[in-house]
Amino acid sequence: MSGNDTVGKNNPGNFFEDFRLGQVIRHATPRTVTAGDQALYTALYGPRFALQSSEVFARACGLPAAPVDDLLAFHLVFGKTVPDISLNAVANLGYADGRFVTPVYPGDTLSAESEVIGLKENSNGKTGVVYVRTKGSNQRGEAVVEYIRWVMVKKGDPAAPAPEAVVPELPESVAAADLRVPEGLDFAKFDDAAAGCRHRWGDYEPGERIDHGDAMTIEEAEHQLATRLYHNTARVHFNQHVESQGRFGRRIVYGGHVISLARALSFNGLAGAVKIAAINGGTHAAPSFAGDTIYAWSEVLERIELSGRSDVGALRLRSVAAKNLACCQFPLKAVSEEGRAGYHPAVVLDLDYTVLLPR
Amino acid sequence: MSGNDTVGKNNPGNFFEDFRLGQVIRHATPRTVTAGDQALYTALYGPRFALQSSEVFARACGLPAAPVDDLLAFHLVFGKTVPDISLNAVANLGYADGRFVTPVYPGDTLSAESEVIGLKENSNGKTGVVYVRTKGSNQRGEAVVEYIRWVMVKKGDPAAPAPEAVVPELPESVAAADLRVPEGLDFAKFDDAAAGCRHRWGDYEPGERIDHGDAMTIEEAEHQLATRLYHNTARVHFNQHVESQGRFGRRIVYGGHVISLARALSFNGLAGAVKIAAINGGTHAAPSFAGDTIYAWSEVLERIELSGRSDVGALRLRSVAAKNLACCQFPLKAVSEEGRAGYHPAVVLDLDYTVLLPR
Amino acid sequence: MSGNDTVGKNNPGNFFEDFRLGQVIRHATPRTVTAGDQALYTALYGPRFALQSSEVFARACGLPAAPVDDLLAFHLVFGKTVPDISLNAVANLGYADGRFVTPVYPGDTLSAESEVIGLKENSNGKTGVVYVRTKGSNQRGEAVVEYIRWVMVKKGDPAAPAPEAVVPELPESVAAADLRVPEGLDFAKFDDAAAGCRHRWGDYEPGERIDHGDAMTIEEAEHQLATRLYHNTARVHFNQHVESQGRFGRRIVYGGHVISLARALSFNGLAGAVKIAAINGGTHAAPSFAGDTIYAWSEVLERIELSGRSDVGALRLRSVAAKNLACCQFPLKAVSEEGRAGYHPAVVLDLDYTVLLPR
Repeated sequence: MSGNDTVGKNNPGNFFEDFRLGQVIRHATPRTVTAGDQALYTALYGPRFALQSSEVFARACGLPAAPVDDLLAFHLVFGKTVPDISLNAVANLGYADGRFVTPVYPGDTLSAESEVIGLKENSNGKTGVVYVRTKGSNQRGEAVVEYIRWVMVKKGDPAAPAPEAVVPELPESVAAADLRVPEGLDFAKFDDAAAGCRHRWGDYEPGERIDHGDAMTIEEAEHQLATRLYHNTARVHFNQHVESQGRFGRRIVYGGHVISLARALSFNGLAGAVKIAAINGGTHAAPSFAGDTIYAWSEVLERIELSGRSDVGALRLRSVAAKNLACCQFPLKAVSEEGRAGYHPAVVLDLDYTVLLPR
Repeated sequence: MSGNDTVGKNNPGNFFEDFRLGQVIRHATPRTVTAGDQALYTALYGPRFALQSSEVFARACGLPAAPVDDLLAFHLVFGKTVPDISLNAVANLGYADGRFVTPVYPGDTLSAESEVIGLKENSNGKTGVVYVRTKGSNQRGEAVVEYIRWVMVKKGDPAAPAPEAVVPELPESVAAADLRVPEGLDFAKFDDAAAGCRHRWGDYEPGERIDHGDAMTIEEAEHQLATRLYHNTARVHFNQHVESQGRFGRRIVYGGHVISLARALSFNGLAGAVKIAAINGGTHAAPSFAGDTIYAWSEVLERIELSGRSDVGALRLRSVAAKNLACCQFPLKAVSEEGRAGYHPAVVLDLDYTVLLPR
Repeated sequence: MSGNDTVGKNNPGNFFEDFRLGQVIRHATPRTVTAGDQALYTALYGPRFALQSSEVFARACGLPAAPVDDLLAFHLVFGKTVPDISLNAVANLGYADGRFVTPVYPGDTLSAESEVIGLKENSNGKTGVVYVRTKGSNQRGEAVVEYIRWVMVKKGDPAAPAPEAVVPELPESVAAADLRVPEGLDFAKFDDAAAGCRHRWGDYEPGERIDHGDAMTIEEAEHQLATRLYHNTARVHFNQHVESQGRFGRRIVYGGHVISLARALSFNGLAGAVKIAAINGGTHAAPSFAGDTIYAWSEVLERIELSGRSDVGALRLRSVAAKNLACCQFPLKAVSEEGRAGYHPAVVLDLDYTVLLPR
């Protein structure tokens, strides 16, 4: 190597000791969302919810246009945070307080920034947990999606001193009063036949479980196309040359890809749930790989009235995705042979979120 | 399972005994077509026909904009019908009387409805044939594509009584008088060089056969992306976990995917055939799978004059797709070792359709 | 075969003896570029350069909208030339004098034409080298991208007489005075944080080498989607049935696909290089195949001042892509076991190009 060689010009990502409580990180790169992104999203997952699928339907519901899928907006915001927050992450530990505020329309430009709201070094001295509140905004500065995420991040220098431990309080779920119905949205004339909606808000009972029946096998090209579309640069998704020597011998599918598959599969049983209002929490119980077939089922956790609204209600749902196992038996927890309680080995996702649907 | 568990909230699809003669089914979900869909369609098949490829070319031909590919419109309409018509189908038996009426432009929202025009239970008492006329419309209620399809559907309850057998009369082809030239379309100034058009309407002779030369190998990710883009939910295309135990051990490629490949390949020899006017009939002679390489050839069945038009004519074509066999020998029929006449074993598609091209 | 059978209606491509010095070939098919194409381009490679990614950023830099990626425009123009120039090519030998003139915006319609500027039959009498200058234009006739390419093309008739040998003079690089800064572009208010730009023009030193760190594994579906999107019809990219019997036993990835991967990877270290101004030369040192993982590194060849501009400068770069080898050792040349000097066996691309970035 010559004296001019540079490793410093590429971005090594932040290590645990690089984060400071209260630090605000503005993430690159702003991204204009287009009808092309939405078409790709449709091709990648096959969502059929009417509000995002049809301009005519969206306008009849009082919106100015068909918004893009809520999870497309989420993934675009999430992706921007990866080079700064989780390039050196060991594990993505959880989500909380995810709020879908203003809908995203084709033509909107999304930016993201994150505030470090918690730091806690692990007792091994090699890693620590970083808590961030990430806010995605449109070109008018309006919040479009906000959420808390915490990740376990490697230390770059094991000798770096531990920061004072601060663990933020995490709400168990987004409160009813904080669920945002998009401005103008009115389900008074919700067209059930067009939406494929056979059941409205009042038809769902807490405790009810729905097997979504359909399933999707993941291909390498699919999850790579998706993850690049979101500007997510986590290396484990893209580099077979390295991963072939790794723990799994294979590239790992971006966890958000599985969330989007589960959401699209949930149309079969939840067609009226045309809008996501919140992500209360989520666990990627196990990794998914190309070749895995994803099934999903959902449980109604709570039926939530929205103050002053007779046209629209919310359901808090648990959606569970399992790989290579049909969900007619609603797989969730299991006790291992060694007697440990945990997720059923087929479960890959346990998502707690809140949707809006017509009453 | 708790008493709240629901299988009833997901859509089991209709069984043979659920259909009634004269029944009209409005299909979910309306779908706004965008430039993103057309870009994906181009990436999936590589069509190079000038009318859909270039705004400038389309406007020079008198259209208000470049329409999307005719088959993209067809697949979008077809896909919507799957959850209601063919989720429990054993076989897709045929198409007839397919008409491309009003072109579809980016921004149009497509809806679909089907009328049951025939029913005939099979003598085994386990299945029956359902005939539907499907109509796809835009947001102004104008028909964009219409066709008859018949499928063999399972009975859910073998004891259900057979309906009175009604088999509709099926036209052998769409009559010349019913071929629609889009409003405003004028090929007087058709630019052959731009279109890559080396042969006009009068250059083609009935009986003439054209080997399209090129070929495309199908990948799993490709046909899954396509089929999801069309909102087609037929499970055999997506679920390797189940199909690995099935008759073929593999996912089956949506037949329409092969139609689109054959059409794109036909550019090489039929570049001037920039618009499809009709699908007269079609047979999926054998299934296709990922890894298969699709070749195609076409025969000119008929050269059709269009009343009052000197700028544009129609050709009725047979386009045949074969897998893993070059088409320089024009494979079509063959007699099996057991002496049975049928399709050549490499043939996967035998499509009878009508195109418009400049005179 | 009947007497009506036609092989003449499909396009056999041009053979060496079909080209004439000074001949101008207008290529089919004009192509309107859309936001859908750009979304696919993003999904295929993951570029994160701010100028193409964000309408807001592009407008703040004085452009009327976010242009599409420069290499998307290049591939679209290149693809059109394939059926006429290189369908019977044995090898793509080189590029020179590539200039990105007017940016391409969604809605623009691209056309391409090529002039034959050199011809030289090889001494074996079976092939010859064809030099073309290709010009891609928008709907207003403005040049968008121009370049010289030379390819080795088979003779169709070995007895055809050799033309007089004419080899054009090829510039080693596009001169500083010929580098075009798009009209209106002004980097005075370039937003480094938004662009992820940690280094401006003055921070790069000639001789400096940057390992881009990231990598991408290529899938068959990905390079096929890309190559079809570009209307590139070269058969080696699409036909596994034939290629399985060929020299490599596999489909070959379009060389431009690797260029786009290398460019996208270069964001990590060159985030400020938001615009390509020139392609000075390029060698596809070895073929790439599905399953290969592409890494890249770059060397700064030259730091170029642009006359009268204090806001923007140019860097001439060499970007090298290697397969299945991390680039921390900057692989480039190697001496083989037989003592022959040449490219390192892992190197697949050696590209010489010029980018614009903020000063």
